[in-house]
Amino acid sequence: MEILVVGSVAFDSVETPFGQGTDILGGSATYFSTSASFFTGVQLVAVVGEDFPAEHRDFLASRNIDLSGLQVVPGRTFRWKGRYGYDLNEAQTLETQLNVFEGFQPNLPGKFRDAEVVFLANIDPELQLEVVRQVRRPRVIACDTMNFWIAGKREALVRTLREVDILIINEGETRQLANEPNLVKAARAILALGPHTLVVKRGEYGVLVFGEHNVFSIPAYPLEEVFDPTGAGDTFAGGFVGYLAATGNFSEAAIRKATVFGSVMASFTVEDFSLDRLRRLAWPEIEERFRMFQALTAFEGLD
Amino acid sequence: MEILVVGSVAFDSVETPFGQGTDILGGSATYFSTSASFFTGVQLVAVVGEDFPAEHRDFLASRNIDLSGLQVVPGRTFRWKGRYGYDLNEAQTLETQLNVFEGFQPNLPGKFRDAEVVFLANIDPELQLEVVRQVRRPRVIACDTMNFWIAGKREALVRTLREVDILIINEGETRQLANEPNLVKAARAILALGPHTLVVKRGEYGVLVFGEHNVFSIPAYPLEEVFDPTGAGDTFAGGFVGYLAATGNFSEAAIRKATVFGSVMASFTVEDFSLDRLRRLAWPEIEERFRMFQALTAFEGLD
Repeated sequence: MEILVVGSVAFDSVETPFGQGTDILGGSATYFSTSASFFTGVQLVAVVGEDFPAEHRDFLASRNIDLSGLQVVPGRTFRWKGRYGYDLNEAQTLETQLNVFEGFQPNLPGKFRDAEVVFLANIDPELQLEVVRQVRRPRVIACDTMNFWIAGKREALVRTLREVDILIINEGETRQLANEPNLVKAARAILALGPHTLVVKRGEYGVLVFGEHNVFSIPAYPLEEVFDPTGAGDTFAGGFVGYLAATGNFSEAAIRKATVFGSVMASFTVEDFSLDRLRRLAWPEIEERFRMFQALTAFEGLD
Repeated sequence: MEILVVGSVAFDSVETPFGQGTDILGGSATYFSTSASFFTGVQLVAVVGEDFPAEHRDFLASRNIDLSGLQVVPGRTFRWKGRYGYDLNEAQTLETQLNVFEGFQPNLPGKFRDAEVVFLANIDPELQLEVVRQVRRPRVIACDTMNFWIAGKREALVRTLREVDILIINEGETRQLANEPNLVKAARAILALGPHTLVVKRGEYGVLVFGEHNVFSIPAYPLEEVFDPTGAGDTFAGGFVGYLAATGNFSEAAIRKATVFGSVMASFTVEDFSLDRLRRLAWPEIEERFRMFQALTAFEGLD
C-alpha cells in the first residue's frame, strides 16, 4: 500500500554544538516521505513557495514520492530556525516564518482520495480533519501533533483524534494532552479519545507503544555521533508507517517491528544535517541496523 | 556465591506527591542487601547508632543477611531527608545527618575476607578502597558512586576504579565522571579507567550496559503507580549483582539477564515506601515480572 502524507515542506536553519546549516531542506512531510520511501510509495500533500528549487523537487521525485499534491504558490517557503545545546533532546525555536504555509488548504488530487494509509503530520488539527474527510475509505490513519495545538486547539484536536488509529507524539505531549504526569495513565486516557495505538517518542531514550491490552518499549540506539536531531520524530514515523503500509499488516506484532524500523530510520537521520544521511542510505544498512537493535536488546529467557 | 556489601544503613524521611514517611528504614546497603537476598546470601558491612531498633535488625537477619559486620556504636544512625515532585526521577535532598556514619571505618570480620563477589555501595571512595584491600581474592567487584565524590574526591575515586570490574552509576554521573556529554564516548572513557562493564541507570528510562565490545539496553517497566523511587538504584544493583553471584556466571549473556533481574527488583521497590514492597515480595512475582519484561521488549527478526 502507498501512504498519503500531509504536512510541511520547509527550509530549516539549524545550529548544534557540532555545526550549522542555513536554509537546508526540512519539514515534517519531507522527513516522513523520504523515510517512508525506503519501504513503499508516498503521495505528498504540502505547499511550497516559488523559491523552492528544482533540485529539492528532483530529490523527492527520485525517492518514489508522488509530488502531484505539492502546491507551488507565490511567496516564500515555510522557514524554521532552531538551536540545540549539548542536550540534543530539545530544540530551542529561534524563528518561525509560516510564509506560504499560512494560507495552506490541503486539496487532495483525485487519485490520492483512495489512499489506504494516511499520515497526518504535525499541522493544524482542523486541516488534518479536512484531509481525513477527503479520503474515501482509509484503512489506517496515523497522526502527529504538538504542544502548540494541544494548548491552543484542543477541541479541534480531540475531534481529529476520533478519526485516528495511531497517534505518534512525544513524551511531554502525551502528558500535556492527557493532563496526567504518569505515562501509563496518560496513555490510557488518550486511547479513550479514539486511537487504538499510542506511540510515545522519548528522543534518545527510545519509544513506548501502548495498545489497548499491551505495551512495547524499545531503547534508542546509543550513537557516538549525533549531529542534528531535527526531523528524527518524522523520520521515525516514516519508517514506522512505511513498514506497516509496505506489509499491509497492522497486527500488534507488525506494530512492534514497525517501531524498530522507525527507530532504525531515526538513528540514521540524526547522524548528519538535514536529510543528508538518508540521501546516501542504502537498504542493506537498514537491515544491518535492525540487527544491531536485536543485538542491543536481546536477553535470554528464564532457564 | 555470597556477596559482601559495604554501604549505609539509614533512616529516611521522604515526601512524594503520593504520601510521606518519617524515619523509615533506608540506606544503600539496606536496599542492596534486601534485593540481593532474593538471589543469594549477603554479608553486610555498615554502621548504625544505638537508636537502630531490633525490629529492623530482625528483618534483615530474616532475609539471609549476615549482620556480623554491622557495627553498633554510640550515637544516632545516619539520616537522610528528601522530597520528590511529580517528576520522580530526581530527589531534592532536604537534609543529610551523617551521625555515626561520619566516623565509619569498614573493618571486615575474618570470614568476610574470603568474599568472591563484592559490592561497594555509594560511600567515600577511600573507604571503598580500604574494603577492597581487606578482601583476599575477589572474583568480581562492583561499585557505585555519586556526584559528590566525583566532584570532591576524583583522585581517590579513580584509584578505586582501577580495582573495580563493574561500575553501576546513573546517567548524569556517567557524563560528569567522563566530562563528556555523549554517553557512548563517556562510557568508553570510563571503561579505560578500569571497569570492564559500565551499567548506566536512567531511572524511568531504563538501563544501558556498556562492555568493551558490546552494548545492551533495556527500558524500565512502565508502571501505573510509582510511590517512592528512593532506593531504586541500590535495589537494581542488588538484583543485578545478586543474579550474577547466585549463578557464578559473569559472561556477557549473564550480565544481560542480570540487568533484567535488577530492573525487575527496582520496579517493585518504587511501588511502595521504604522496603515495604520487597518485604511482601515472593519469588513467583519476580519470575512473573521477568516474563513481563520479555513481553515488553520482544519483537520478531527480519523476514
